[in-house]
Amino acid sequence: VSALRETSRRLRALGLTRATLLVDERRARANIRRFRDRADAAGVLLRPHFKTHQSAAVGAWFRDEGIDRATVSSLGQAAYFAEHGWRDLTLAVGANPLEAAEYDALAADVRLGLLTDSEAAVTALAAALTRPVRLWLDVDVGDGRTGVPWQDTVRLGALIRCAAASPALEIAGLLTHAGHAYGASGPAAAAAVFRESLHRLRACREALAGTVPGPLALSAGDTPGFSAVRDWSGLDEARPGNFVFYDLMQLEAGACTPDDLACAVAAPVIGVYPDAGRVVLHAGAVHLSREVLAGPAGPCFGRLLSLDDGGFGGILPGWSLASLSQEHGVLEGRDATAREGLADLEPGDLLLLAPVHSCLTCEQFQSYRGLDGAVLERYRRP
Amino acid sequence: VSALRETSRRLRALGLTRATLLVDERRARANIRRFRDRADAAGVLLRPHFKTHQSAAVGAWFRDEGIDRATVSSLGQAAYFAEHGWRDLTLAVGANPLEAAEYDALAADVRLGLLTDSEAAVTALAAALTRPVRLWLDVDVGDGRTGVPWQDTVRLGALIRCAAASPALEIAGLLTHAGHAYGASGPAAAAAVFRESLHRLRACREALAGTVPGPLALSAGDTPGFSAVRDWSGLDEARPGNFVFYDLMQLEAGACTPDDLACAVAAPVIGVYPDAGRVVLHAGAVHLSREVLAGPAGPCFGRLLSLDDGGFGGILPGWSLASLSQEHGVLEGRDATAREGLADLEPGDLLLLAPVHSCLTCEQFQSYRGLDGAVLERYRRP
Repeated sequence: VSALRETSRRLRALGLTRATLLVDERRARANIRRFRDRADAAGVLLRPHFKTHQSAAVGAWFRDEGIDRATVSSLGQAAYFAEHGWRDLTLAVGANPLEAAEYDALAADVRLGLLTDSEAAVTALAAALTRPVRLWLDVDVGDGRTGVPWQDTVRLGALIRCAAASPALEIAGLLTHAGHAYGASGPAAAAAVFRESLHRLRACREALAGTVPGPLALSAGDTPGFSAVRDWSGLDEARPGNFVFYDLMQLEAGACTPDDLACAVAAPVIGVYPDAGRVVLHAGAVHLSREVLAGPAGPCFGRLLSLDDGGFGGILPGWSLASLSQEHGVLEGRDATAREGLADLEPGDLLLLAPVHSCLTCEQFQSYRGLDGAVLERYRRP
Repeated sequence: VSALRETSRRLRALGLTRATLLVDERRARANIRRFRDRADAAGVLLRPHFKTHQSAAVGAWFRDEGIDRATVSSLGQAAYFAEHGWRDLTLAVGANPLEAAEYDALAADVRLGLLTDSEAAVTALAAALTRPVRLWLDVDVGDGRTGVPWQDTVRLGALIRCAAASPALEIAGLLTHAGHAYGASGPAAAAAVFRESLHRLRACREALAGTVPGPLALSAGDTPGFSAVRDWSGLDEARPGNFVFYDLMQLEAGACTPDDLACAVAAPVIGVYPDAGRVVLHAGAVHLSREVLAGPAGPCFGRLLSLDDGGFGGILPGWSLASLSQEHGVLEGRDATAREGLADLEPGDLLLLAPVHSCLTCEQFQSYRGLDGAVLERYRRP
């Protein structure tokens, strides 16, 4: 019996009928433990980014490993996790003055951290906040998206002194997202970005010493760098997020192994075209997102995984999700074995797709399913 | 006062604080009327695809133009519109035998159309359905995604005779989606795809005449082709969908003018970088989708629109949404005027982004807002 047929049989036994995001809890818990252990060994506070899963149920797996603080990327996510008992949250996207009153309300229940690189935002927050909030300064260590460039300590110093003048703002430290680690060509390059980022944050802190009040903690977080480097010493706080599920993008970058992939989309077959070596699934951009990898044989929007008895299995070679429209995904069989397996399929079968970018794929679902059938609730963006 | 500042002032007057999908009702209604008029003039039944808006509120604007039937792309959408009083719906994605019992339940309230190119699916539907359902045969006129190739009338004939043997399945006709019209280089090329598709559907029907029972209606639908061609004669049914809102992809293909763009995302500024000519918005892939246009100056994920007194204005030249991460969008100012306007902005301002692909951007929101502040509810995928 082929792996395709066995996978379909097991997915049908779960009672699935339409595109559904499945989580392999055993793998996700192993990913969490690996990073918790690295943080503990280096004496670094792990404040995992919850933007990947956005699920109170998955958050509970972090709690089981002793982690009771997190990072989020929207006010809505912060409010959701606060409702689910999380009392220490950093909103690591530039503060939005239009939300200042809502930050203030949230700070009644939560030790809230905010982020900015803007004096206008600091002024607006200072005017609106009535409760203490921790403020992180956004530092650009080379990514070029947001943040004050790390060399510009004159501007950073002025920003910190402006914030320190407000009784509601407690200066937490310097925070960076080395997003350029995602462009690294492999683990060695991602590790080099990690080390350079740390070096730049430390140089920045040294240059500011004595010119601004209080100690400055250093916070960084990106999954490629924190996967490539085992020793996180020198940082105060680590904020990676994607590592809980990983995905094909991280796999291609060498940040994980196929055995670490912990979420995948089960999807029904709706068309089989043996002559063309093609299978069409009712799983499109609305389920997977349009995130894409450039492969030697063209774009890849996903790969097939097998479902074994104990959980997710390996990647089925010879198959690639080669194109994606709103509701359709087109799987191409690219070798003789794959094309032979195709003859076993018909509409009503189910297959399992590893996503290119798990953060975006998870965002497309209102809840997930565990392999035991449990429903894992998640935040629903308005 | 710059258009940026005026747009921000008007968006703030709407009470918006975070990324919000706005619909210009006047433009959408004009788009609907234009296509209704073309359908009426040609004696073609307009069965608009509702996958773009998925909103009962927007559906009501179609009803106002006398349209009481629609196309959808999932069982969930069909059930949603049935709840909102729509009694004639075609689910134009290959039928999924795992959902057969749910199709049957829906057919109690709805004149339901299904689609397939698979004998296995026909057999499964015939076994499960207890209520009459209209069945469309999926014909591939050149797109290469789903459907029986239009020349393969032997297979099509066998499929139709197989379906006709089931008392629950009423043969509706031949249905195609000329998705390759999206790859056309402009209106003339899209019109050529339209004419070729119609020619192939008619040739297919002629070849089948006398070999299968009953008349076969011809149904086609894609916005580029139906925008480029004014005379739709020869078809029985037209199923375009995107035209209700259009988007930058359609604009680039010459299918619409900037004045037809009827949905856009209002988003808060969270970072301003005058030296780099860059503005960062809290609007990322989770709000806009990762759909992208390849421009001469690199990828484009969106363009800035002005908001005027009466509604959406024109595209603000010199600006492009040049990169997109999960929650962040990076706007680049590419000429001197754009870079000067940047000095007017600060966190707390709001800007308006025209999306690349409105179907995918709409999918990222649980509801929309009209320019009068009205909340437009939409289907929420589970």
